[in-house]
Formats: sequence, C-alpha cells, structure tokens
Amino acid sequence: MPPFEVPEGDPFGPHNLPYGVFSHAGSQERTVGVRLGDHVLDAGAAARALGSPYASLLARPTLNPLLAAGRTAWSDVRRALTAWVTVPAHQETVAPFLHPLSSVTLHLPFEVADYVDFYASENHARNVGRIFRPDAADSLTPNWKHLPIGYHGRSGTVVVSGTDVVRPSGQRKAPADPAPVFGPSVRLDIEAEVGFVVGVPSEMGSPVALDGFREHVFGLCLLNDWSARDIQAWEYVPLGPFLGKSFATSVSAWITPLDALEEARVAPPERTHPLLPYLDDSGEEPGGYDLRISVAINGHVVSEPPFSTMYWTAAQQLAHMTVNGASLRTGDLYGSGTVSGPEPAQRGSLLELTWNGRDPLELPDGKRAFLEDGDVVTLSAWAPGTAGVRVGLGEVTGRVVSG
Amino acid sequence: MPPFEVPEGDPFGPHNLPYGVFSHAGSQERTVGVRLGDHVLDAGAAARALGSPYASLLARPTLNPLLAAGRTAWSDVRRALTAWVTVPAHQETVAPFLHPLSSVTLHLPFEVADYVDFYASENHARNVGRIFRPDAADSLTPNWKHLPIGYHGRSGTVVVSGTDVVRPSGQRKAPADPAPVFGPSVRLDIEAEVGFVVGVPSEMGSPVALDGFREHVFGLCLLNDWSARDIQAWEYVPLGPFLGKSFATSVSAWITPLDALEEARVAPPERTHPLLPYLDDSGEEPGGYDLRISVAINGHVVSEPPFSTMYWTAAQQLAHMTVNGASLRTGDLYGSGTVSGPEPAQRGSLLELTWNGRDPLELPDGKRAFLEDGDVVTLSAWAPGTAGVRVGLGEVTGRVVSG
Repeated sequence: MPPFEVPEGDPFGPHNLPYGVFSHAGSQERTVGVRLGDHVLDAGAAARALGSPYASLLARPTLNPLLAAGRTAWSDVRRALTAWVTVPAHQETVAPFLHPLSSVTLHLPFEVADYVDFYASENHARNVGRIFRPDAADSLTPNWKHLPIGYHGRSGTVVVSGTDVVRPSGQRKAPADPAPVFGPSVRLDIEAEVGFVVGVPSEMGSPVALDGFREHVFGLCLLNDWSARDIQAWEYVPLGPFLGKSFATSVSAWITPLDALEEARVAPPERTHPLLPYLDDSGEEPGGYDLRISVAINGHVVSEPPFSTMYWTAAQQLAHMTVNGASLRTGDLYGSGTVSGPEPAQRGSLLELTWNGRDPLELPDGKRAFLEDGDVVTLSAWAPGTAGVRVGLGEVTGRVVSG
Repeated sequence: MPPFEVPEGDPFGPHNLPYGVFSHAGSQERTVGVRLGDHVLDAGAAARALGSPYASLLARPTLNPLLAAGRTAWSDVRRALTAWVTVPAHQETVAPFLHPLSSVTLHLPFEVADYVDFYASENHARNVGRIFRPDAADSLTPNWKHLPIGYHGRSGTVVVSGTDVVRPSGQRKAPADPAPVFGPSVRLDIEAEVGFVVGVPSEMGSPVALDGFREHVFGLCLLNDWSARDIQAWEYVPLGPFLGKSFATSVSAWITPLDALEEARVAPPERTHPLLPYLDDSGEEPGGYDLRISVAINGHVVSEPPFSTMYWTAAQQLAHMTVNGASLRTGDLYGSGTVSGPEPAQRGSLLELTWNGRDPLELPDGKRAFLEDGDVVTLSAWAPGTAGVRVGLGEVTGRVVSG
C-alpha cells in the first residue's frame, strides 16, 4: 500500500495527525513528526521542501515553538499538513520524508514546564474515599464538588511512552507497625489519565477564564500517573503526595491537537452543586471529551475507563489553576486525575480495581493485587470522529523494572 | 572610596561574592554579576577582558551554565573571582566592569526547573499543629520525625526579589459557612525560608546519598513562600497546598555559594527518633547552617528566625527527594520550609506570630493579623564568617498589591 494510503477507518488517518518528536536510528537529531497511519512525516523537512513558512515551527527539536505559536497558527499548520498528505501534488514532494514508525525513535515531544495533577473523576474520588475513609459520612471531602482539587507534580520525571519505570523505594508504615520500614514499594499502581498541554502562556496576575481554554491549550495525550500506594499513604498527610508519585509520569509520544477532537466534545455530567461564577460552565460550549480509554497489563485489558464521565472539565481545571493569578507557560502539562467510570470494569487504577488489594485481578499469567516487576502497562484510547471514523490517541506504555 | 574597597566588616565583601543576573538600564541583555559591597561585577565581561576560560560560564544570561558545571568548576571560578577583585593587577583590568548596584536591574538568577517546598522546622510544624489541630494528642503528624515532609510547588511563579505580589483571589469557606465564597484572600501571609539551588543533575533511578549534597547543590538564598491561608485551608485536604501557594514565591536576586558558608556549618538539633539509614546523618559532617534571618514589615522587624534550629537538613531533604529514584535537574529549587525558632519572636509566619490572627502584631502603622495591600515584606539574613566578619545573604522583598 502506498505510504499515504491508510486502511479504511484507520484511527491515525489524515483526520487525526497528532504531533510528536522523533529521531532516526543512529542520529541524535530530533525533529517534529506528524503521525499518519504507521508512518511518521518529518514535518520540518516537508515544510522546507515545499517552501512553507511553517518550517520555523516544525523543523525544531521540540513542539514548544509550535505550542507557543497560538491557535491561529495551530489551525493554519494543521490545514497545511492535511493538504501535504492528501493532495497528490504535495504528496509527491513530501513522500521522501515519510518514514515507517518502526524505523524511528520517539522522544518526549515537548519540554514540560509545570506539571499539575487533578482529581476530577467523581467515581474515582468516591472509590478512594470508601477505601481509605470507610467510616466517613460522605465518601467525598467537603470541597470536592466546589473546586477541582489538584496539586503540583514533578515535571522533571515526566517521561515518554516506552520508558522503563524503576520500582521506587521509600518509607512505608502499616498502621500497626511501630516504625516505618524502607524498601521497594510493594503496592505499585497506575492511574489512567488524560494530560492537557498548554501552548500559549499567560501573565502573572491575570486569570484565564473558562472560554480561554481553546486559546491556551494545544492538545491532549494519554498519561499514566504511576503511584506507589504504600509510600503515598505514609507521607501524604498533611501536604499531599510527593515521593509516592514523583518517580515517574509517562505520557504518550503523540499529542493530539484539540482540532482533531471536535466531534468528541460532550457535555460533562450534570452538576449537583451550584458553582462559583469562574467555574460555572452551564453557558459554555460542551467542555467534556468522549475518550474511550483502555488499560492493559501485559496485553490483557483490565479496564475501560470512559473520559466522558469526568465531573470537572479541562477548561474548569485551567480556570481554577489560574484564578489566583498563577501564570501559564508554554509546556505546562496538567493531568485530569484518574479516569474511573461508574462500573467496576471502568476503574482507572489497581487500587480501585482490586479494592486496595483485597480482590486481586485474575490475569492469564496469574493474580495481580498491584504491579509486579516485568509487567507492561499500556493505555490506549480513541474518540468518535467524523463519519464514524475513530480518532486514535497515541498509546502510553511502560514496563516495571526492579530498582 | 574606590570601588574595590568595601567598609570594614561589610557582609558583602570579597569573602562572600554571591552570584546574580543583571541588566543595565535600557538594555534587555542579561548577564551574570557578582556582588561586591554595593557594586556588581559584570563577571562575564571581566572574564573576557582577562582572557579567562570561565567567560563561557559567566557571560551568560542565567546562572544555569555555571550551576551545571559542578563543584570543581564552582571552586575554580570562585577562586578566580576572588583574585580579580582583590589582586591589584586584576582590579585594574576589571574595574570598568564594576557597576553601582543602584544602576542595574536584577533578574531571577536562574531558570527554575522543579520547585519543592519542605516543612522542616519542628517549632513551625508544632505551632501549625497546635493552631489547626488543638485537640490532637501530638502536635506533629506521625510521620514528621521519620521523614522530611515536602511537596511540589509551582516553578513558573518563582519571582525575583522586588517583584510586586498581587493579592490572590480564590475560594474560602469558614467551617460554619454553608458554601464557599470567592474573593481576594483576607489571610495573606508570608513564610520565611531558605531556598537551595541544585546545580548538577542526577539520573532517574539513582538516589543521591547524604554525602552527595555538596556535589549537587550550588548554593542557597532567602525565599518567601507567600501563602493565602484562607484559600489553603479550604483546598488542601486531601492533596495538599495548591492555589494557596502557587500565585508567587519570591527568591533573593543573589545566590550565595555554599563555599562562602563554610564557617556557618553547624550540627542540626539532636534527633529524638532513630532515622532510616538513608537519612541518618549522625556520621556525616555538620548538615545545618547558622543563618540569622530577620523578617520586616514596612521596615519594622517582626521576627528573627534562626535557621540553625531546623530539624531536617538540606542534605537530608535532597536524599529524601531522590530516594525514590526521582532525578535532579540543573535549576531545581527546594525550600527549607518556614523557619521558626522556639521563641515567639522567632516565628517565620504571621500565622504563628499572630496565632492565626488572634493576637495581631502592633506595628508603627497599625495592627496586623495578616498582610494589607501596600505592605512591603523583607527577609534578610547573615551568617558567621571567618574572623567574625558576617556573610550577608541577599534580601528578598516584595510589596503586596491589590488584585
């Protein structure tokens, strides 16, 4: 099949065109690539060959220049790329710059500025509440329905899909233990999330309103917020998660532009509590995204979390994150929080899937309460697109190795 | 007085030589400067004029290249700078590059990678416990004596001393209120801290041991962790501080190299609990620093927190932060946590000084429970040096402006 033709219904057809950064075998030189089927287009080289002005945004070692360029440029570049891979005259010119995915190395596609992680799934938050505070009158904390709870994570340990994850060591202490012990985590978990990538910065002291979301956010990707539950449980009172999370956060090599996901926009769940004006999205365009996530361990699907069930939208999270005047920078990344649907088979963490280890999963290669060394965790997802053709998100995968 | 002569006992004499980044009036060009008395030496220009190989580290718009160069280079550069400002033959060459501090603009001296804030003062943690959990059997949480509690903050809103701080708006809710309200914080506070600046990065998966502190950390500075107590109180359960902190963190324009503080090293307080081996510093060189901090509001000193009382040392914080395999990057910044001594007049936050507003401070211009618009907060500090000459830390100052 000629390289520009993708199979009917391919979720990475010309309707998608996610962005990444790649290098050729044996080369240190990184450049922006655009995925088409199982190929990657060297977008900078193609732009140069066509004399396109976008070469200055695409012939670069990270996506940051493109991210910073803003929504008009994002749309223009996407329109150009679509033409390059679909119009025969352009195809002929750019064909030499289309490479099989199997022949290239994919890299972290942008320089991460600040990384924030939210906690926006009501199902997830209630499951966690039931597991850790079984006697509480409400499984949600009192603030949960009033603001999207979030915290800052470690941007220096955000890694690209495919990077091995070393099992972290740290302190843990069971309630009955007299003192903490040190060693490799024995409750290593995943959290299936969606990450949002900020392109256009904002000024300190100037909040970004709900309707500023599409001006500031370029796109999204799958994100695995690896979590050491035992380390987290002992450390997190009173200042929140730290070493239980900071050892690694994996993101997909492909950033899907919001423009590819127009058909996937959906209204978020009905709000059960009145919202303060800066978060009230009742008069806004639909802020949710219908992303169908799949979580697999060693190739065996263990969960299918639906992103459309998230209570807080990415636009609300952005408005909240900046309402105190905090500025945005190009490359800021924020995670949605674990995506868990209402059904047991839709939970986005082993903590929930195994009810804190009480009900281990039965996998073809044995039981799993939490992850074992050698386990490979893969998140994948798709969204509804035009005429029933799915829009694929780039997978995020990682193998657990012993420390 | 000729520019190379500083008054007897000046805390910014040639025994100190902190590093910053400055520009001349009307110029956008930033370059590394070294403070001598009330002058700044254009270190890159001086290096070039002398044909020094260190020009490549000093004629740069941030300290990051110098930070990344490592301890041997740090010592060599410091030795060279000391000669340039003290040896007459060199003085003659570099004199044209010595500018009055009043004639230059100081900038954020390095690109902040990740920012982490700790909670290492036992007095502070106990005060906070007594204020917020008055009925608890122990004012410390069970983990406090076993690990240095910390969390990630927002690196994108770290600002240089002198930057105005816009009073943040956000949600707050008193326990008796039926629902949260939105508005400017009415409990705006400061936290007097010391920040540590990482120079040499580390690999993911490779913890940095206690004795790696001096190989990885370049120097320190004063840090004001501005805090909106009302926003923080409503948001922080269960994932920790977020918008109550992320609007601004101020750091001094001057980074004091650890090499200037050798005389200030002291043993930390006696450990009351056994420590796990990776934190056990009983066999290590003294990990504390005898820094005498002063907190002033509108020029009126309200507190003098002694850094020597900090329970957890910066070396222990570094070891803890990386024990899970988290990597370090050049430009990582970590704050000590609020510095509070045992005496009431040694507390490093208004929360403690006014006991959560119950006992307002009496200032010459009126009472203060928390900060008012227009208030200027200034942290300054000195450390003991050789022959009784103090080593000054660069001040960190900021004015509160309405949002």
